[in-house]
Amino acid sequence: MKPLILISNDDGINSPGIQYLALKLKRIAEIIVVAPDREQSAVGHSLTMNKPLRVIPFRKNGEFFGYAVNGTPADCVKIALTTLLDRKPDMVVSGINHGQNTAINILYSGTVSASTEGMLFGIKSIAFSVASHNWELEMETASDFALEVVKKALEIDFPSDTFLNVNIPAVDKKSIKGIKVTQVGSGYWKDFYVKRKDPFNRDYYWFSGEYYESENEINNDDIAVKNNFVSVTPIKYQLTNFEEMKLFAGFENENKQDNTD
Amino acid sequence: MKPLILISNDDGINSPGIQYLALKLKRIAEIIVVAPDREQSAVGHSLTMNKPLRVIPFRKNGEFFGYAVNGTPADCVKIALTTLLDRKPDMVVSGINHGQNTAINILYSGTVSASTEGMLFGIKSIAFSVASHNWELEMETASDFALEVVKKALEIDFPSDTFLNVNIPAVDKKSIKGIKVTQVGSGYWKDFYVKRKDPFNRDYYWFSGEYYESENEINNDDIAVKNNFVSVTPIKYQLTNFEEMKLFAGFENENKQDNTD
Repeated sequence: MKPLILISNDDGINSPGIQYLALKLKRIAEIIVVAPDREQSAVGHSLTMNKPLRVIPFRKNGEFFGYAVNGTPADCVKIALTTLLDRKPDMVVSGINHGQNTAINILYSGTVSASTEGMLFGIKSIAFSVASHNWELEMETASDFALEVVKKALEIDFPSDTFLNVNIPAVDKKSIKGIKVTQVGSGYWKDFYVKRKDPFNRDYYWFSGEYYESENEINNDDIAVKNNFVSVTPIKYQLTNFEEMKLFAGFENENKQDNTD
Repeated sequence: MKPLILISNDDGINSPGIQYLALKLKRIAEIIVVAPDREQSAVGHSLTMNKPLRVIPFRKNGEFFGYAVNGTPADCVKIALTTLLDRKPDMVVSGINHGQNTAINILYSGTVSASTEGMLFGIKSIAFSVASHNWELEMETASDFALEVVKKALEIDFPSDTFLNVNIPAVDKKSIKGIKVTQVGSGYWKDFYVKRKDPFNRDYYWFSGEYYESENEINNDDIAVKNNFVSVTPIKYQLTNFEEMKLFAGFENENKQDNTD
């Protein structure tokens, strides 16, 4: 039996990235697409709790392509795994996102959050992004590498607390130098807001920013992509700063006051 | 000069939690409130990039209370620190959230994301939550403990990659046993969706779930709160699974094909 792969994304079900991903993965797997009905960029790991979700069959070129959900990537994976699918998939794949998801920006990425959800359900998961926001970019190259990574991933067991975050350079196939296993870099956005006046002379603000790459790491996601390598990063959420628990030990106390009240 | 504290939240600027927090912190600090204009629960670490933000002065009981922003907690902290404030605050505080933010649920929490933003700007940051979704809950107790934690935090230096996630039991003051420094627990939600029919006989789905607490950790956030301790967890985002980079080494290759094409 072919493996079953659940595909989602955050650019929306109508994006070129998810279409190419679905097309390529169909060669080796049974696929099911459950994706947001519209673009959900920078939704991070958000969930829709205050309104109900709709699940609508979505057609492309006259054929059934997948299910469109009026929610976030995390919603899509959750509702697929709990409600829509008959059997547990062998893999959850998200992307291919238009725009790279590297360094701390992983925290803001809907593409990555879909893989996080897959992992939390105990399923091998991979997030794919290509390093360009251009929707006209040819996606053959990126989707070929995605297929290669998925094939390799199907052959091994992942630790249950780990998923893969994959970033693919936006260059032609010949220029890609290979695949590298990397760490999460320490690059960051320096944010600012552009202040403008609307036609009624009221202020409004556009989010903007400039990206600062880390300079002193040799094997991180940003550097790999910059050097035309496909970056494969094993992600695990280690949230406690154990080393610094002592620093905050002075915060601890036991309330004695109660007895004397 | 009094310290300057930026206050935000994800329940919205009109919530009781932020009002109590502001009231208490005013005793020891100059405060500025910049918070979402409406509830933003489970927005996670999301940013508003596809529409402009508005910043509207917000009044409570006839007095200026703070700025309401049509965005997420992360938006509020970003626009405050980059654009609205004249000087860098000494601390970013978010909350008091109605509903505890513990274990992996930290990833979905807008309250926590506000503190993450503060930390990324190099500012001491703390997220406060109380373990009840009841907006009628008396907030004197929770805000007293928040004040106590903020006072202690003002006295020490935080590592630049670390912020505090604080969860306060929803019990009366006498029942709180003290403050504990904890690790992030491994509890999790088992999600499901409630399927219903709308008046037009179309399906819709409500997100729901049941919480499973970790059982084999003695000093985590969930257990502390359950035992009526205020839980103080130092959070650091360690995202790379370094231990498992070898496992994925087989993914690596250098493209040789180019030369022979």
